[in-house]
Amino acid sequence: MQANGASSPQSATLLISCPDRKGLVAAITQFIAGNDGNILHLDQHVDAQENIFFMRVEWDLTHFTIPPDEIVAAWKPIADGYQMQWHLRFSSQIPRMAIFVSKEAHCLYDILSRYTAGEWRVEVPMIVSNHTELEPVAAQFGIPYYVFPITRDTKREQEQKQVALLRECGIDLVVLARYMQILSGEFVSEYPNRIINIHHSFLPAFPGAKPYHMAYSRGVKIIGATSHYVTADLDAGPIIEQETVRINHKDSVEDLVRKGKDVEKLVLSRAIRYHLQNQVLVYNNKTVIFA
Amino acid sequence: MQANGASSPQSATLLISCPDRKGLVAAITQFIAGNDGNILHLDQHVDAQENIFFMRVEWDLTHFTIPPDEIVAAWKPIADGYQMQWHLRFSSQIPRMAIFVSKEAHCLYDILSRYTAGEWRVEVPMIVSNHTELEPVAAQFGIPYYVFPITRDTKREQEQKQVALLRECGIDLVVLARYMQILSGEFVSEYPNRIINIHHSFLPAFPGAKPYHMAYSRGVKIIGATSHYVTADLDAGPIIEQETVRINHKDSVEDLVRKGKDVEKLVLSRAIRYHLQNQVLVYNNKTVIFA
Amino acid sequence: MQANGASSPQSATLLISCPDRKGLVAAITQFIAGNDGNILHLDQHVDAQENIFFMRVEWDLTHFTIPPDEIVAAWKPIADGYQMQWHLRFSSQIPRMAIFVSKEAHCLYDILSRYTAGEWRVEVPMIVSNHTELEPVAAQFGIPYYVFPITRDTKREQEQKQVALLRECGIDLVVLARYMQILSGEFVSEYPNRIINIHHSFLPAFPGAKPYHMAYSRGVKIIGATSHYVTADLDAGPIIEQETVRINHKDSVEDLVRKGKDVEKLVLSRAIRYHLQNQVLVYNNKTVIFA
Amino acid sequence: MQANGASSPQSATLLISCPDRKGLVAAITQFIAGNDGNILHLDQHVDAQENIFFMRVEWDLTHFTIPPDEIVAAWKPIADGYQMQWHLRFSSQIPRMAIFVSKEAHCLYDILSRYTAGEWRVEVPMIVSNHTELEPVAAQFGIPYYVFPITRDTKREQEQKQVALLRECGIDLVVLARYMQILSGEFVSEYPNRIINIHHSFLPAFPGAKPYHMAYSRGVKIIGATSHYVTADLDAGPIIEQETVRINHKDSVEDLVRKGKDVEKLVLSRAIRYHLQNQVLVYNNKTVIFA
Repeated sequence: MQANGASSPQSATLLISCPDRKGLVAAITQFIAGNDGNILHLDQHVDAQENIFFMRVEWDLTHFTIPPDEIVAAWKPIADGYQMQWHLRFSSQIPRMAIFVSKEAHCLYDILSRYTAGEWRVEVPMIVSNHTELEPVAAQFGIPYYVFPITRDTKREQEQKQVALLRECGIDLVVLARYMQILSGEFVSEYPNRIINIHHSFLPAFPGAKPYHMAYSRGVKIIGATSHYVTADLDAGPIIEQETVRINHKDSVEDLVRKGKDVEKLVLSRAIRYHLQNQVLVYNNKTVIFA
Repeated sequence: MQANGASSPQSATLLISCPDRKGLVAAITQFIAGNDGNILHLDQHVDAQENIFFMRVEWDLTHFTIPPDEIVAAWKPIADGYQMQWHLRFSSQIPRMAIFVSKEAHCLYDILSRYTAGEWRVEVPMIVSNHTELEPVAAQFGIPYYVFPITRDTKREQEQKQVALLRECGIDLVVLARYMQILSGEFVSEYPNRIINIHHSFLPAFPGAKPYHMAYSRGVKIIGATSHYVTADLDAGPIIEQETVRINHKDSVEDLVRKGKDVEKLVLSRAIRYHLQNQVLVYNNKTVIFA
Repeated sequence: MQANGASSPQSATLLISCPDRKGLVAAITQFIAGNDGNILHLDQHVDAQENIFFMRVEWDLTHFTIPPDEIVAAWKPIADGYQMQWHLRFSSQIPRMAIFVSKEAHCLYDILSRYTAGEWRVEVPMIVSNHTELEPVAAQFGIPYYVFPITRDTKREQEQKQVALLRECGIDLVVLARYMQILSGEFVSEYPNRIINIHHSFLPAFPGAKPYHMAYSRGVKIIGATSHYVTADLDAGPIIEQETVRINHKDSVEDLVRKGKDVEKLVLSRAIRYHLQNQVLVYNNKTVIFA
Repeated sequence: MQANGASSPQSATLLISCPDRKGLVAAITQFIAGNDGNILHLDQHVDAQENIFFMRVEWDLTHFTIPPDEIVAAWKPIADGYQMQWHLRFSSQIPRMAIFVSKEAHCLYDILSRYTAGEWRVEVPMIVSNHTELEPVAAQFGIPYYVFPITRDTKREQEQKQVALLRECGIDLVVLARYMQILSGEFVSEYPNRIINIHHSFLPAFPGAKPYHMAYSRGVKIIGATSHYVTADLDAGPIIEQETVRINHKDSVEDLVRKGKDVEKLVLSRAIRYHLQNQVLVYNNKTVIFA
């Protein structure tokens, strides 16, 4: 087993949720240990109120006696016996991420500098926007930039083109890096729990438009940012990460925007990392973060 | 002049707000310096959007040539010339504070231990409650404890008795240290910007009842507490101080309550200190904190 | 299984460390599940650099088929097979904690108000001091207060009396709540990893005397506090918890002391809680905190 | 006067320190107001222990009756009378900043993305390095990149060439954005209080090399970063800004490095901003930050 930072070159990760029962941990770990798998990380949690069991377990495949393409078949009977919902992911699979932006560059630069530095296991084959402003940033990093101008009339049609493009390129994850369009329920349903948004407030305070203006008017002493999975309800999806920063009476709305941007960048990048590391489990419109 | 911590034994503090104009700082500081006052602290701020000027200035009275009881008369012409709203306070005046509680002891203990240690310049002549539970705590610290049981029917009458008691004892400041009753507009109007409440959420998120339960249900990653002046609108008064603390999916509602209590204590005590140090100026339902 | 806050009335907790090997988690959880124990919490960690495995597991004894007084005998063969170091604790055992103080009351009040509120599962049968100043606080809470005045000449003798008293009263945990005496190696060796100190700096910065003065002189922008187990090396024992708070150029040494006290209280109380919940594992002069 | 965020197109800023005396604020503000200057910001502080007065005052030059090039002559007699040390800066002067890097890109990307977005009033005419690795980043942003490979033998000579280049390009501020060379005293003396470094620890803890490894070994629960002016003493110059982030036992050294980078970026960028806004006053190896 290994600490946070080091990842085995060849490992499998199971994310599991099911009704809580005695012997669950023993059954799962016996499946792995009994087939010569070495557990790298194990984290479990139980929501006592709802009686739901959650687990994330990652194990080294080097000496695992079941070949990768037979793991599902071997695992399924156990999973079925406990009525589990589960996902199996291999470290050899590199997710493909599309970044959606509008005109603000700060989150985009932060993501691309991490991507360039190899901080995450991910491919970024495209940047999508409803505006042309950030095309030069995409060009700086040599990433294709697709513009879909959107008006009330063209929205549906343009979204369909966007989804078609995402499918064609095998996109696994969509990141809204200050994309100032509300996605339709239709779009969202194509990528359940696979669209990550950054909202520039400490939700549930100040949902919707102009949160920094609202924070200024209310006279709060702390502002924040929230990263969440997008659902059909605006700014109401499962929260992945939040962070706050102190402000004071000297700060104008412009200062709030400036200080807030630093929090937005940080929160969005942390949420992306959790997702890419398969550390997020969603239930009841909430998240379990195994970090 | 002196740093935050040290307070001159005999000083005066002016809190000023007025329309912004050229020469304001020069006029005010000239009034003090021209009469041999030594400025201990000076802090100013301008709300550029509203064009309002704010200042807090504290000066040593030791060599000030105007006697304390003639300062108002000398100052008034200047203040009138600039259409100032202002308050003058002397360090020799010790405010009298009433603490209102219900059944939770954590804020009360925190306040009383600071009070006993002499951390604040204040007198606490009474603790008021709608329940008897915390009478032993009051007894531990030798402070009179007054019980006013409140039902829907007796509320008005009991509040009138409370106000009468406060007046009789010359109370300057009322602190609601987890007092679980909503004060009527009538009560509030007796002590404008002189009733400090602690609300157990990061306002404007989760106002009203059971904020920790609401935070748990929404799945936020950070909780907080807010201290504010009480106005006729529930949990909507000018915010004095806020603080947050990180939680995670392992935390039950009881954990949120426990972690939240530590934040509540801290936030309420900081707000009380700001008020007692004459560091708070209220305008537009917001606060300027000169700290 | 249950979330953080709720504790089963009758549970057992195992804290385990040993060389990392395949099958460890499976073997341990099989011991519990195979005897009808329901796992309430399980947390594991591996130090990859040192190849050491750590686990904390808590399970419900209600239906556990092995009686409490036979668990050790049943468990020992497994533990020996894996060369484990381990501790077994029952929730029915209430630890007994002695509080050592000198003249500062803030940590003492914070601890006693939590104790009175029933926040922790602990008994506090005594407060020990080298001064008489805080005797009234002990009296407020009805706890016996023992004074051992200490000079260079009497130190050894007084420490021996203190240890004798601790033994006589069956003390499990000693908390130094701003006790301004350095314990001898002899004293410390009586309570390995069972003496918790609060140091008023962000260690390893500013060890030893007058850390706030040193922080002021150095011009740091953030101060902190550190809670650690006491070892023979001054302020160098395993760190349990730390916290920081922002300061600025306006803060005098007195302000640092005041702001620091709030951090000290918080950090010490968190460390005590971790210890009492059996959430702390010590190795290599570091701690694993299973919280 | 205006809030933090808005800056007048044409303003002057005075940074003043001198022995504290009565009438200082009045004299300074009278100089401005008496010549029809409108004060935009005024902030003052006194170090009571050292009896030193500090002030930052910024005023609008639009209606100021003294022309910019005569302000020094008009101001000097007042300054001399109070034995002031002072700096006068005009908002029309755009500082020129050189960025020094080695192989780590995170701070560089953060700085350049802010620069590109126009977040700061600054020109960045060059990036200097002892390695070639980050040349592509400079190229991405179209900024000249100068490489000065350094060995023990060539250090003195190369530094002289660097200083010559800086002079030639009229550089006002040098930022060491994870530049892994220790500047000689000779170099440092060319830019007193004008070289900003980011050190990847919470100073004074873990100065020198490999602070994340040292933090890991010590088992601290919080790590940090420190931005300071470079002096002849390694990592001992006046601290401008610090920030911390929580870690836990699961974090490997690599995790500390990753989490630390986010703090480094933030702290360095805040320090640069304070410097560029003329908000920093240095005395006694400490800073007053008028923010």
